[in-house]
Amino acid sequence: MVQKDWIGVSKWELDTPCLVIDEEILEENIRTMQGHAASFGKQLRPHVKTHKCSHIGKMQIEAGCTGLCVAKVSEAEALVKNGIRGTLITSPVVTGFKMERLMDCLQEDPELMVVIGDSANARDLDAAARKRGVKLSVLVDLDPGSGRTGVSFKDGLSLGRLIETLPSLRLCGVQCYAGQVQHIVSFDERYQASLHWMGQAAEVVRQFRQSGLPCHIFTGAGTGTYEIDCRIPELTDLQVGSYTLMDAEYLSIASSQNPTRFEKFPPALTLLTTVINTNHDHFVTVDAGLKALYHHGATPYVLHPPDSGFEYDWWGDEHGRIALSHRSKKPHIGEVLELVVSHCDPTVNLFDQLYFTRKGKVIGIWPVDLRGKCQ
Amino acid sequence: MVQKDWIGVSKWELDTPCLVIDEEILEENIRTMQGHAASFGKQLRPHVKTHKCSHIGKMQIEAGCTGLCVAKVSEAEALVKNGIRGTLITSPVVTGFKMERLMDCLQEDPELMVVIGDSANARDLDAAARKRGVKLSVLVDLDPGSGRTGVSFKDGLSLGRLIETLPSLRLCGVQCYAGQVQHIVSFDERYQASLHWMGQAAEVVRQFRQSGLPCHIFTGAGTGTYEIDCRIPELTDLQVGSYTLMDAEYLSIASSQNPTRFEKFPPALTLLTTVINTNHDHFVTVDAGLKALYHHGATPYVLHPPDSGFEYDWWGDEHGRIALSHRSKKPHIGEVLELVVSHCDPTVNLFDQLYFTRKGKVIGIWPVDLRGKCQ
Repeated sequence: MVQKDWIGVSKWELDTPCLVIDEEILEENIRTMQGHAASFGKQLRPHVKTHKCSHIGKMQIEAGCTGLCVAKVSEAEALVKNGIRGTLITSPVVTGFKMERLMDCLQEDPELMVVIGDSANARDLDAAARKRGVKLSVLVDLDPGSGRTGVSFKDGLSLGRLIETLPSLRLCGVQCYAGQVQHIVSFDERYQASLHWMGQAAEVVRQFRQSGLPCHIFTGAGTGTYEIDCRIPELTDLQVGSYTLMDAEYLSIASSQNPTRFEKFPPALTLLTTVINTNHDHFVTVDAGLKALYHHGATPYVLHPPDSGFEYDWWGDEHGRIALSHRSKKPHIGEVLELVVSHCDPTVNLFDQLYFTRKGKVIGIWPVDLRGKCQ
Repeated sequence: MVQKDWIGVSKWELDTPCLVIDEEILEENIRTMQGHAASFGKQLRPHVKTHKCSHIGKMQIEAGCTGLCVAKVSEAEALVKNGIRGTLITSPVVTGFKMERLMDCLQEDPELMVVIGDSANARDLDAAARKRGVKLSVLVDLDPGSGRTGVSFKDGLSLGRLIETLPSLRLCGVQCYAGQVQHIVSFDERYQASLHWMGQAAEVVRQFRQSGLPCHIFTGAGTGTYEIDCRIPELTDLQVGSYTLMDAEYLSIASSQNPTRFEKFPPALTLLTTVINTNHDHFVTVDAGLKALYHHGATPYVLHPPDSGFEYDWWGDEHGRIALSHRSKKPHIGEVLELVVSHCDPTVNLFDQLYFTRKGKVIGIWPVDLRGKCQ
């Protein structure tokens, strides 16, 4: 879906608010993470819930990832429709309606996988697959101490054993995604916390193998722990997502090299917004509010103009407030500012398309084709 | 766009997360507000940025409103495309590209209006209209002391005089929308604050009339001040929006009758969400997180099951956490809960459709056809 009339245009002429991708940075981020995983002998299984864009998913596949992750069945449907195979659904599928949709996907993508964190749910999925005469690949979802989804580490083995007895399920291993540690600001504290939880998941993997249960997959980790979790020998692949686009929240945590900034992955995603009111001395109003910049995570920051002293804050559904500092040159009505977004995942989910640019010119427009797919 | 397969189905069988409208409550809310305005001799000019749904806009028109408000040009385009006429754009239109789109709309809807809060912007709009050989109806946007958009009260008259000299603009009056007072919890404080600002706007209206400037429209007010601003004789119409759907944020402020609840308009909008994990004693996990319930305003609350002791909190992009109290009966996996959303406007903007129900059964599915239109 390329709208030809914008191709070749400077990004500064785009109608705003809109989301822009610097394709060179995106490619470099994808390459960097793929190379990092490979250097540890790991695979990548990137999470597309971040970018919600099949085109970026295909870039990740071309770069060598082993498959993609989605959070919801409706996202898996969109990937299947786009010819993408081997998707892992990282959240449990529990209703009859969603199981039917899952089985429809499975008939197109026999490598589709889903996680299970409950024994009754395992039996239900087995029955649904048997009814269709198919076999569903599954992972035991291990709760990394947060309680959101998954079984406790101590119950992991018995759930694995149950699944192994169910004829229409194919046990492939375990998932443990410690979402709660990804944004710990201190690298050392994040390091300790992640190894604490993921180490217990590795112990379950060893139990599986000692018990003769199939376990060729141990998937987990996020962008915040990509440097840390690779040290776990049992881990087979990383479910990183935000590294592709980045946002103010991730950029403000420490990396192994820098205590104040997570600098390995520069922001490929930015938001363009236009100044619409300049009637005051110390601030101006822009056209991006709650509906264009999701209100969660860190405060968005102004990338362009550089060193402007501008500070963004939300100002209702439709507007933002740009506070000026003593060194700021006040922008004029119609001026376009470029911001790094607060939290990339829910912000991308607000837009229908991403403008891909190279050297500041639009080279393609790709749909956020998984947008709104929260079911 | 009616998906026939859901019609007649109980809302409890819908795939979740999804947004549901109780049509009887919606109709009653529309009727109540229309009747309230009429009893004061005022018109309604409801803001569709709340529901982003042309179908609901048409219900408001059928109930007798004088026209609809939108925040952005892209929303006006969608209404024009749906045959709706007489729309007011409540935020300034400042770029050349958007002015061209505005003029395209104007050729379909000659009654289209836009606000102006800057003299250079007035001249630009005049030139754009002249180039097309059309006349654009405009309102002077008065800044209600928040600074977001509009000119100060003291500069209102001179901007009106300038506009009156511009041949392709048709001055119709003023807008003053005091967004910052709508959610003041105390009714008395809200009353004082709103009359303080709106009273100054009324003074500008009197200046216009004394100076012989056209001023048949003085539009303003929101759901939070609908009882208050009607007391201003000069006010001609109310830009109320949230009264249609309602949310936890508005429901938690005082009304003139009740110091703890804004009870005149019950919630017509609710979110259905499914329990997907029950592995813990004191909480369960549901399938609605940041991407299904916008993280802004008050905390969403559980409407069904009633008196459950359940408390919702966000738990990442995809999930929510339902804390149980000592009196709670723990829900089972697959159980559907019904929530009043935090802030209706940005939450509706996350979904493609609204399931309309009567007596708990789906009777229609209407697209959120203005969703994502933040440009």
